[in-house]
Amino acid sequence: MTVIAACQLALAVGDLAGNARAAESAVRDAAARGAQFVVLPELSNTGYVFTGPAEARALAAPAAESPALRQWRCLAEELDIVIAGGFCELGTDDRVYNSAAVVDGSGTRALYRKAHLWDTEKLIFTAGAATPPVTDLGFARVGLMICYDLEFPEWVRLAVLAGADVIAAPVNWPAHGPPPAGERPAEIIRAQANASVNAVFVAVADRCGAERGTDWVGGSVIIGPEGYPLAGPADPGKPMVLTAACEFLLARNKATSPRNDVLTDRRPVLYVDLHTAR
Amino acid sequence: MTVIAACQLALAVGDLAGNARAAESAVRDAAARGAQFVVLPELSNTGYVFTGPAEARALAAPAAESPALRQWRCLAEELDIVIAGGFCELGTDDRVYNSAAVVDGSGTRALYRKAHLWDTEKLIFTAGAATPPVTDLGFARVGLMICYDLEFPEWVRLAVLAGADVIAAPVNWPAHGPPPAGERPAEIIRAQANASVNAVFVAVADRCGAERGTDWVGGSVIIGPEGYPLAGPADPGKPMVLTAACEFLLARNKATSPRNDVLTDRRPVLYVDLHTAR
Repeated sequence: MTVIAACQLALAVGDLAGNARAAESAVRDAAARGAQFVVLPELSNTGYVFTGPAEARALAAPAAESPALRQWRCLAEELDIVIAGGFCELGTDDRVYNSAAVVDGSGTRALYRKAHLWDTEKLIFTAGAATPPVTDLGFARVGLMICYDLEFPEWVRLAVLAGADVIAAPVNWPAHGPPPAGERPAEIIRAQANASVNAVFVAVADRCGAERGTDWVGGSVIIGPEGYPLAGPADPGKPMVLTAACEFLLARNKATSPRNDVLTDRRPVLYVDLHTAR
Repeated sequence: MTVIAACQLALAVGDLAGNARAAESAVRDAAARGAQFVVLPELSNTGYVFTGPAEARALAAPAAESPALRQWRCLAEELDIVIAGGFCELGTDDRVYNSAAVVDGSGTRALYRKAHLWDTEKLIFTAGAATPPVTDLGFARVGLMICYDLEFPEWVRLAVLAGADVIAAPVNWPAHGPPPAGERPAEIIRAQANASVNAVFVAVADRCGAERGTDWVGGSVIIGPEGYPLAGPADPGKPMVLTAACEFLLARNKATSPRNDVLTDRRPVLYVDLHTAR
């Protein structure tokens, strides 16, 4: 069993020092509770609601020099854990990316640039041009994607076809008003379905702390391969560290009946239009 | 607005006359409540838990001669409605299919053969080799698929890319014990996510009535394009007719923010492995 943590953080745009303190505190809390793998939110170093491209660019740093990635590496080495989180990246191509990384004591194990951009992100960031990376951490193979990417079941499936046992998803889910009475926010329902149809774990780290008029779902959650939460959903609006003990090897068994397997039951030959349409 | 109905029926395997009466009664109830489009369960004429291929074959009929399709056509003509439902088909190729049809007063508008087969269905039926049909009924374009097909988000996406405003899904969801306390069955969560990520309506007609040791989720539901139920989920174990008034044109608007559209935001060039993997 491996303990995984999803950290819901209160962040503030532009407050690099304060955001770094919030991340460190949550990571130390998670490690103290036995977590070996810790997920932080999207853009966890900078905050999200930029005034425009100039502000994001001013706060971005190359992955090789990112203070956030350096911090995660130091914490990962000290605490003997692995951290996945989102940060604001200045590419070597001088473009700004909404990125995420998987970092352990040896350094950056995977780097990912968000491929499906939400709303004003399209004015600020360049979309990534690569599929989600899958990194073998020994205790699990981790697929990495960011927020709106989760709304494309194609994207989660690609990570699972590439071997992911768990999807680590840094998010900043903007709130669009409360869901209907008695309903979970659709963001969480979609994450549950992603876990269920792929028989994988999904760990979502959301954020809280209203920012320039935007509030957040605050729906951090750790979901098991049957699609049900193992921890969370978090209380909206409240920073918290969710942990769950996961048997990640369960995700290697895709059988759902004596004659069914969620991957080999696919009919890829019939799926050609997913690749060619539009 | 168009009223749609999802009929949860108590069926019994092999009882063609009793099942036909159950279907007729539900369809008349739905039409009396204003429904213009009525969805019946999977294999609604024959029941589901066959002893084996021979029993299914003995109960199957060619689409052109199927008493079930003839019944639906008569009801559709009399009541001026459209019916979608599942039936046991003997193909002109002498193979047995788990099929569904969309039928109006003019006849069979669409025929579909389940492409993703569940468990012992693999011993009984030949899998379909065509993508889900999308039929323009004037008030809506209806995509048709069956039960386990819904667990392949690829399949729902294909129907939506082909123009479906609503997915009609005859199902027989076998129960695997109750979900965790406070949780909806994963079958319903997956259907909700399918609606949400595609901004389409989804109408699921499940069944009830334990059959040779198999019980059913009894989770009939009509879901709106935001992923939340408009009617249901039904009471498990109880026959019932759910109805919801739907503005199907809402499903033609795929915008989810001033800069987002659930279809045009896809990155099909990056999805090639969905078609080629395995």
